[in-house]
Amino acid sequence: MDKAIIEKRFRAIQESICTQLEAADGKGKFREDAWQREGGGGGFSRIMTNGDVIQKGGVNFSAVYGKTPENILKALKLEPSEFYATGVSIVIHPNNPWVPIIHMNIRYFEMSNGKYWFGGGIDLTPHYIFPEDAKYFHQKLKEVCDRTNTEYYNRFKKWADDYFYIPHRQETRGIGGIFYDRLDETSEGLSKEQLFEHNCNIGELFAPLYVELINRRRNTPYGEKEKYWQHIRRGRYVEFNLVYDNGTKFGLDTNGRTESILMSMPPMAEWTYEHKPEAGSKEESSLAMFKKGIDWINA
Amino acid sequence: MDKAIIEKRFRAIQESICTQLEAADGKGKFREDAWQREGGGGGFSRIMTNGDVIQKGGVNFSAVYGKTPENILKALKLEPSEFYATGVSIVIHPNNPWVPIIHMNIRYFEMSNGKYWFGGGIDLTPHYIFPEDAKYFHQKLKEVCDRTNTEYYNRFKKWADDYFYIPHRQETRGIGGIFYDRLDETSEGLSKEQLFEHNCNIGELFAPLYVELINRRRNTPYGEKEKYWQHIRRGRYVEFNLVYDNGTKFGLDTNGRTESILMSMPPMAEWTYEHKPEAGSKEESSLAMFKKGIDWINA
Repeated sequence: MDKAIIEKRFRAIQESICTQLEAADGKGKFREDAWQREGGGGGFSRIMTNGDVIQKGGVNFSAVYGKTPENILKALKLEPSEFYATGVSIVIHPNNPWVPIIHMNIRYFEMSNGKYWFGGGIDLTPHYIFPEDAKYFHQKLKEVCDRTNTEYYNRFKKWADDYFYIPHRQETRGIGGIFYDRLDETSEGLSKEQLFEHNCNIGELFAPLYVELINRRRNTPYGEKEKYWQHIRRGRYVEFNLVYDNGTKFGLDTNGRTESILMSMPPMAEWTYEHKPEAGSKEESSLAMFKKGIDWINA
Repeated sequence: MDKAIIEKRFRAIQESICTQLEAADGKGKFREDAWQREGGGGGFSRIMTNGDVIQKGGVNFSAVYGKTPENILKALKLEPSEFYATGVSIVIHPNNPWVPIIHMNIRYFEMSNGKYWFGGGIDLTPHYIFPEDAKYFHQKLKEVCDRTNTEYYNRFKKWADDYFYIPHRQETRGIGGIFYDRLDETSEGLSKEQLFEHNCNIGELFAPLYVELINRRRNTPYGEKEKYWQHIRRGRYVEFNLVYDNGTKFGLDTNGRTESILMSMPPMAEWTYEHKPEAGSKEESSLAMFKKGIDWINA
């Protein structure tokens, strides 16, 4: 299967997601910026700002290639070679603090020596946790994973718990989801086509899943108190992305387009020294659930 | 010279700075939190929030020791050993966007094999650049450096330009200042006592220097527009500190106290996709000056 097929399908997924999100938002429109990468390739960034639901969101497609940078070779323990990478990457920050932040990524990576792999996932970062929404979210992820391999959900759910973790806060970024990387025929005992289908399934699940979660909470009223908590949680989001996220690191290290990489930054964030939620508050109970290993489906 | 002497003097410098900043602010008070480090040592964090001038500021002292963590050994190419580190570290975020953000650090590091070194510096991050203030700031730094070595200012000014640089933005964090690290008898041809004096001179310069800069701008009126620009520049400050700053990395890697390390985070920051200042604005002319190699004293 040629990379041109993968690239085309990823671009179609980007298009479809934008259409669905615009329809759900009802007001905001995505603006597209085409960009080229010095060294090879480029992308199409689609950004929405000040929508009705979406305060700031990016749905980015890129396909980049060229000489593999030294730091990447070192990190992945690879011989000098050429690389090719394509993917769709999404972060949505909603206006309403009752609506969760969401992140999705599907990616394909290929080396000039013939090695290739797929990676991806969807994870949710609610400011306030509703166990029934968390259950719904994880159930949908499980259903889609089960179509390829009934062990995938458990495996990828644990991977997300471990990946989206902020050691210096001893908190998970949100309620996790699924995360996977470096899947190939050898590791998975599946054909390249099957792995690609799995990645596309994840891409196609994204919009209907998030739209459902949006619609459950978009009309819940909120005030200063909820906005403040949203800003505090967004501060954690910034900490995770800038300190630990490999996608951000990879982007900055390969001279990616800064504005496209950092579209993940929230529109506004706050840091308060030693912030502690009030005893018995919804903030406090949410904070207590930013932990690894919670079985959201059967909780 | 024993490390106990250094520790004691650093702690006195922290005390003196807090007293001077409280007097200048006129309203805010520092609150002290003592903390202990698992593995050895601890510190005293002093934080002011919602002062008249200072919106959020930290003046931290720490003295930590123990087994040198693996990642530090690797980064500094050292053999397994015990370390001891003490220092004063300051970041001040003002309310008024016309008043600059400031950062100061003096530190002493010692290894169980007898090696030691001093590091430190002061750098300024104005949201709006006033060349006359920048000149004053750099002149004062030069005067203090000249007391130890007339080549120090030029050398340490360049070091700051290179250190406080955000590659992915192709911007300096602010207008620089001085930065130095790993100064010892061999590298400098000065006694340990002389190097220590230099570090203390920097520590003692800090408060009067910043108070003068505060007083020049604290009464300048500002509105939404200036607050917004302040938030955008604070976003860059966050990017630098979380992606590139060695002090932050060192702190997080040695299981330092998170709330003390991240006191450097601004109270509030914003990210706007492809933000560009208006043509001919004060924001635009400031942005154009976030560059390396500007001779502020003779500009």
